[in-house]
Amino acid sequence: MFVPRQIVEEKLKAVLAEDIGQGDVTAAAIIPSDVKVKAEVIAKEDGVIAGIEEATILAEYVGLKVEAKAADGEKIRNKQVLMHLSGGAQTILTVERTLLNLLSRMSGIATQTRTLTHIIKKNKSKTKIAATRKTAPGLNFFDKKAVAIGGGDPHRLHLDDMILIKDNHLAIVGGVEEAVKKAKANASFSKKIEVEVTTLEDAFVAAKAGADIVMLDNFSPKQAKEAAVKLRKAGYEKVLIEISGGVTAQNLAEYAAADVAVISMGALTHSVKALDISLEIVK
Amino acid sequence: MFVPRQIVEEKLKAVLAEDIGQGDVTAAAIIPSDVKVKAEVIAKEDGVIAGIEEATILAEYVGLKVEAKAADGEKIRNKQVLMHLSGGAQTILTVERTLLNLLSRMSGIATQTRTLTHIIKKNKSKTKIAATRKTAPGLNFFDKKAVAIGGGDPHRLHLDDMILIKDNHLAIVGGVEEAVKKAKANASFSKKIEVEVTTLEDAFVAAKAGADIVMLDNFSPKQAKEAAVKLRKAGYEKVLIEISGGVTAQNLAEYAAADVAVISMGALTHSVKALDISLEIVK
Amino acid sequence: MFVPRQIVEEKLKAVLAEDIGQGDVTAAAIIPSDVKVKAEVIAKEDGVIAGIEEATILAEYVGLKVEAKAADGEKIRNKQVLMHLSGGAQTILTVERTLLNLLSRMSGIATQTRTLTHIIKKNKSKTKIAATRKTAPGLNFFDKKAVAIGGGDPHRLHLDDMILIKDNHLAIVGGVEEAVKKAKANASFSKKIEVEVTTLEDAFVAAKAGADIVMLDNFSPKQAKEAAVKLRKAGYEKVLIEISGGVTAQNLAEYAAADVAVISMGALTHSVKALDISLEIVK
Amino acid sequence: MFVPRQIVEEKLKAVLAEDIGQGDVTAAAIIPSDVKVKAEVIAKEDGVIAGIEEATILAEYVGLKVEAKAADGEKIRNKQVLMHLSGGAQTILTVERTLLNLLSRMSGIATQTRTLTHIIKKNKSKTKIAATRKTAPGLNFFDKKAVAIGGGDPHRLHLDDMILIKDNHLAIVGGVEEAVKKAKANASFSKKIEVEVTTLEDAFVAAKAGADIVMLDNFSPKQAKEAAVKLRKAGYEKVLIEISGGVTAQNLAEYAAADVAVISMGALTHSVKALDISLEIVK
Amino acid sequence: MFVPRQIVEEKLKAVLAEDIGQGDVTAAAIIPSDVKVKAEVIAKEDGVIAGIEEATILAEYVGLKVEAKAADGEKIRNKQVLMHLSGGAQTILTVERTLLNLLSRMSGIATQTRTLTHIIKKNKSKTKIAATRKTAPGLNFFDKKAVAIGGGDPHRLHLDDMILIKDNHLAIVGGVEEAVKKAKANASFSKKIEVEVTTLEDAFVAAKAGADIVMLDNFSPKQAKEAAVKLRKAGYEKVLIEISGGVTAQNLAEYAAADVAVISMGALTHSVKALDISLEIVK
Amino acid sequence: MFVPRQIVEEKLKAVLAEDIGQGDVTAAAIIPSDVKVKAEVIAKEDGVIAGIEEATILAEYVGLKVEAKAADGEKIRNKQVLMHLSGGAQTILTVERTLLNLLSRMSGIATQTRTLTHIIKKNKSKTKIAATRKTAPGLNFFDKKAVAIGGGDPHRLHLDDMILIKDNHLAIVGGVEEAVKKAKANASFSKKIEVEVTTLEDAFVAAKAGADIVMLDNFSPKQAKEAAVKLRKAGYEKVLIEISGGVTAQNLAEYAAADVAVISMGALTHSVKALDISLEIVK
Repeated sequence: MFVPRQIVEEKLKAVLAEDIGQGDVTAAAIIPSDVKVKAEVIAKEDGVIAGIEEATILAEYVGLKVEAKAADGEKIRNKQVLMHLSGGAQTILTVERTLLNLLSRMSGIATQTRTLTHIIKKNKSKTKIAATRKTAPGLNFFDKKAVAIGGGDPHRLHLDDMILIKDNHLAIVGGVEEAVKKAKANASFSKKIEVEVTTLEDAFVAAKAGADIVMLDNFSPKQAKEAAVKLRKAGYEKVLIEISGGVTAQNLAEYAAADVAVISMGALTHSVKALDISLEIVK
Repeated sequence: MFVPRQIVEEKLKAVLAEDIGQGDVTAAAIIPSDVKVKAEVIAKEDGVIAGIEEATILAEYVGLKVEAKAADGEKIRNKQVLMHLSGGAQTILTVERTLLNLLSRMSGIATQTRTLTHIIKKNKSKTKIAATRKTAPGLNFFDKKAVAIGGGDPHRLHLDDMILIKDNHLAIVGGVEEAVKKAKANASFSKKIEVEVTTLEDAFVAAKAGADIVMLDNFSPKQAKEAAVKLRKAGYEKVLIEISGGVTAQNLAEYAAADVAVISMGALTHSVKALDISLEIVK
Repeated sequence: MFVPRQIVEEKLKAVLAEDIGQGDVTAAAIIPSDVKVKAEVIAKEDGVIAGIEEATILAEYVGLKVEAKAADGEKIRNKQVLMHLSGGAQTILTVERTLLNLLSRMSGIATQTRTLTHIIKKNKSKTKIAATRKTAPGLNFFDKKAVAIGGGDPHRLHLDDMILIKDNHLAIVGGVEEAVKKAKANASFSKKIEVEVTTLEDAFVAAKAGADIVMLDNFSPKQAKEAAVKLRKAGYEKVLIEISGGVTAQNLAEYAAADVAVISMGALTHSVKALDISLEIVK
Repeated sequence: MFVPRQIVEEKLKAVLAEDIGQGDVTAAAIIPSDVKVKAEVIAKEDGVIAGIEEATILAEYVGLKVEAKAADGEKIRNKQVLMHLSGGAQTILTVERTLLNLLSRMSGIATQTRTLTHIIKKNKSKTKIAATRKTAPGLNFFDKKAVAIGGGDPHRLHLDDMILIKDNHLAIVGGVEEAVKKAKANASFSKKIEVEVTTLEDAFVAAKAGADIVMLDNFSPKQAKEAAVKLRKAGYEKVLIEISGGVTAQNLAEYAAADVAVISMGALTHSVKALDISLEIVK
Repeated sequence: MFVPRQIVEEKLKAVLAEDIGQGDVTAAAIIPSDVKVKAEVIAKEDGVIAGIEEATILAEYVGLKVEAKAADGEKIRNKQVLMHLSGGAQTILTVERTLLNLLSRMSGIATQTRTLTHIIKKNKSKTKIAATRKTAPGLNFFDKKAVAIGGGDPHRLHLDDMILIKDNHLAIVGGVEEAVKKAKANASFSKKIEVEVTTLEDAFVAAKAGADIVMLDNFSPKQAKEAAVKLRKAGYEKVLIEISGGVTAQNLAEYAAADVAVISMGALTHSVKALDISLEIVK
Repeated sequence: MFVPRQIVEEKLKAVLAEDIGQGDVTAAAIIPSDVKVKAEVIAKEDGVIAGIEEATILAEYVGLKVEAKAADGEKIRNKQVLMHLSGGAQTILTVERTLLNLLSRMSGIATQTRTLTHIIKKNKSKTKIAATRKTAPGLNFFDKKAVAIGGGDPHRLHLDDMILIKDNHLAIVGGVEEAVKKAKANASFSKKIEVEVTTLEDAFVAAKAGADIVMLDNFSPKQAKEAAVKLRKAGYEKVLIEISGGVTAQNLAEYAAADVAVISMGALTHSVKALDISLEIVK
């Protein structure tokens, strides 16, 4: 996900403006406008850092000088200095919270993603951990980028970039076969087609009908493994398998054994534990 | 926090547009444009519902008919139907995820807020649980509203609505007394003045200098209680006390005993566990 | 490409506002504000109509009553009435040009797309005619939708929805094999991978490296057919072939003989001949 | 049409953002973020270049270094280098298409305008070739500017900058005389008043009623010349005459003979043939 | 100045949103959300009402029911009821101030414009009173519309709708003759050309060079009259004369005697006395 | 009111864009694009300057070099040079009016605020002069900032930053006591509570119920003084008193005698006399 920093700036402007309102009345009241200070962004716990690029764009946007001391995706330690900032004291105090909110959320997501991908690796599986569209409202871009930084797959970036036929589509269309056929007939050649199935039978129907990806919904680790093996044996080795639903950090090792292409987990972005990061004036 | 629904609509448009991109290619490929369906929004776990008002605005904005079956702030049960939707199948499928992301996050926040306020009540304290500005980036409005629905206090809505002097301000200004004096001299009469302190001494300095609110930062339950009692005895009973830092669901009961005005917790909005809610096509 | 009409409305607002400026000074000066009229949108030449949906959204957005007399994708005849409008005379006169500009461009694109797809069909080929990203600046959505209405494939909706490795990427990365390998390693599983090649050798390299789609750039009809046949024979029948560059209405029949998956043509959207459509006050 | 470049930047941001979506997944997947490259923008056919200023603003906006090798309005030759760009490889690849779409369309318009103005000059006429409001939707600014660069007249920039009474206005108001009188009575003194007429009689009515400009709609070259001569003879030499409707590159020379002030042609902007321009990585 | 109400709505949204911030905390705290009320908008002094249309759009935008009891441009009396509103009490209280600010400013402008035009009429002159671009920042549209409602001429709506050569242009270009010649050579035929002059000599130069309008800057009433008479006598009766600078309500009658086309006054919009209007809950 | 200049830039962009429209046709027609000039912003009358910071942001935003020769809040004299500008002649001419409109309005507000605060000081009172929400529509930020620069208090920045219970709220809720009680129960601890009262009795009810601020509406100077004295005597010395309604520059001295905390005057921002400031090309 590369996007020119100016486009990111536009997103950050809106976030900053919401937090500021008509102005920082505290900084205005007690700090003279010509005071310059230095500040450090510091980790308050171990984790994987994400959002350094966005935080840098934000800080530079408001005219601060930034020196990043850690790069997105790095492991960081409690008390580690992540960024040096310098510039107007009022400005630093005004953007402090927006900058930290961004870093903390993105790092929380990256840290959890990294933890999960390590479970996969320890189980000698090549399965990718993927995000879903279950992000915080409006934070699709930042949440998905954090997943990618943590080593995960961002999955669909929005509704226009893959055909993903889910339970509710099937409830309307009728069945897996008809849905996939319609998708193949009507969708652009540039899109992959994925179908969510709840039974092994439907997984075969989907594969036969030409789905590029079959999502096994709420299969147990054992069922998932069995499905993966049977599909491969039946000659569908090019059909990617995604496991979704019911996967947790606790049972992930078991699912890893199925060695499918992808395991997607909504909790990666809908239930984030922010990483504790703070900003301190140093001089 | 009352705001005309048209203003909320503007916020929701941006969220929806980010998720959709150039269009829902799945719905377009497999669902005829004239199919009408009904759907239910259903709880998948117990909790406190929040976001019904926003979800209704979103659904009606895109032309769906909505019947809310639960009201913001109500306790809900697993499997309970929360909303009836009807309208174009393509439309329902296109907004489904945005609507659920909003409801799930807001309900997750409201549920946790309610849990914490119950701990307070069980300890026969009148302390309010309050949010902070540690929201998801850009979600200040929705996150704070969810806290309010859960029975908490939204605290500052943005940087312009109270003077809140924190550690970094003090590091620049010099000391509590000078900071409060400057605030009283320069800030609008319409703003309250709050100061974060780390020692009992500074709490007294703040109160004496005329702070409306004193925030005890990282005080232990015992220290907090002691500070509250001493300030009251010293005649500062009109000075509100806020406890912040180090408070968790586990030790909240202990802090409740201090019976201060407010306990604020960043985790309420920075580390949210989404409430599980889904949408099902019913016909 | 399904998108709730409210999202389209936002795009149309900007178009309308640019055309109006501070107000329609002609309508204001000579037409009383309470005059109601009826108007017809009428074809001035034969073609395929597109944009009826968008024109309807625009007209209803400004409060007009609309009755569409033709549906997107229909063949229309010179003098055929396409829409009935009624409402405020000032309003109709103010939106007239924006509405016609939209209809004329979209219909011009759809008409040309239909013409080309007929050439393909007459040659008993199943090749799809596809658009490119060579649209009028900012008109990606409307231009691609018009191609789809005309029976073409919209191709990538924006830069985020497929991996498409072109000459300039290859000039930087080094070669087709390395580029495809990097793409497979780094891109989301949800994206197809396409590579533009200029030689038959590179077409094989691309297919072998795992590209989902191979774009033959500036191949003659004969070369294209040969490449298609050889790739199929070599067992790459699942690899889609796209022909691009040098295809015109004149030589399309020859290219059709290659019977590849897709022929993409930039001229479909970068060099549009608008369909002549006008609006007439009828009462 | 002078506008500070920052205002143009705002227009270009929206165009770029539509094309990018959530990010350039190809550049991100296969090009390291620290690779710097040089690129050339090169003409692929002869013509008149337009949009160099806008392309420069766009490229500089995203942080590229730009050296323009041709100036807006210059004649260019096939293979001529038009711009040098240097900077991040990902950035160049991401903006390439938006930059070329802008240049190609604007140059296509300028080239055609120049061709038409040459026909006029060869016929020793002083008539100006003018655009209309028949632009691509939302591209009023860029399309009109390209016409001006090509040597044409942009005509009305939007609905607020001249009184132009057309057939549909007349159908409502009743007649030319009444319409012009109302316009003179109600419109700002700062606006010119133009009326479209379909007969010589109405041309005289318009001139007599005080129109500043009379538009002869769908007059043959002979009729147009006759009207121009008669109006001049009747003492209306200060009334400008505009010919509109039915003028093509083929019959333009005949219309030139009427030697009126303006000939406007919608096709200049509604049916554009883009000039072929490409971008090549050079190192 | 006719503009579809939806475009006005967009302008009003921004105004309303600035005033509200994150929500009306007072209405939310003390008024139940289901209380419906009626309110009246009432004049607190005599004047000319303007902004009823905009106030209606605003009130209806937020869902209120509106009955206008006065029309834009009417004379109103102290205590006269101007609008009936009904709907949600919270909503009425939230928009009250924005609605009144709009009405008060526009009516203040219209009232003063009417007063000045009456002075002109009493002096049996046909001179129009015109606005300038000296509006409140960003309020060009509303301020000019109020002038028009008051019987004045809005003058240029923005920088793109007339050539107006002022002192600073002349300081750069050199002289009136050269400036007008350049304008005639380079500007669109659709624009009038106006020049500001400070001497009678330059007025003649401007007229001779072909200016459509000559602005006499800071001429005394006597000088202005003399200039007007001499220009007319010299055969420039089609050249409009505008007087600007130094005109006040006090000396307007004297200037009226010059009987020129236009007298423009910046104070009309830069120094507005708001008309006193209030809103009262009636039930 | 501190806000990063980039946020102010966003507000100014909109103002500038409204004034420009599609471009400055005069500058484009008669000034070559490469002419550089210097200009001075000059006071045309005595006053207090405000808006230098905003004017600087605006001028720098469009690429001009700026040297401020006066600082916001300074007393300035007729003919005093306030700013030096240099850069493109077209650019300076294009932003001239927007820059002056901003400076003139803000300085007009600051000048009047200073005049009123001097009246207060001469009467040896400590009362603050405060603004209200009666600003020009959408100019809340600039108008309030100008009041602050003039030495006044900005009062509420928008509806979300204080509880202010006014006559219309009371008409719905019933009475002062109930309204204040509801506010104390439901509003955030971070907000002050103010109530508007029309009688001395209600002032006591408000104070007793716990209002932080009591606004005496339309009290005569004598009544206001009496109320202030009685409330103080009754032990409510911490309750701030605000006088509002009926205060003018003429009777302000009398009101000053009451020595209350705040006197608010809507006319400060709703009926502004712009300070005369102009821009002159100097080279």
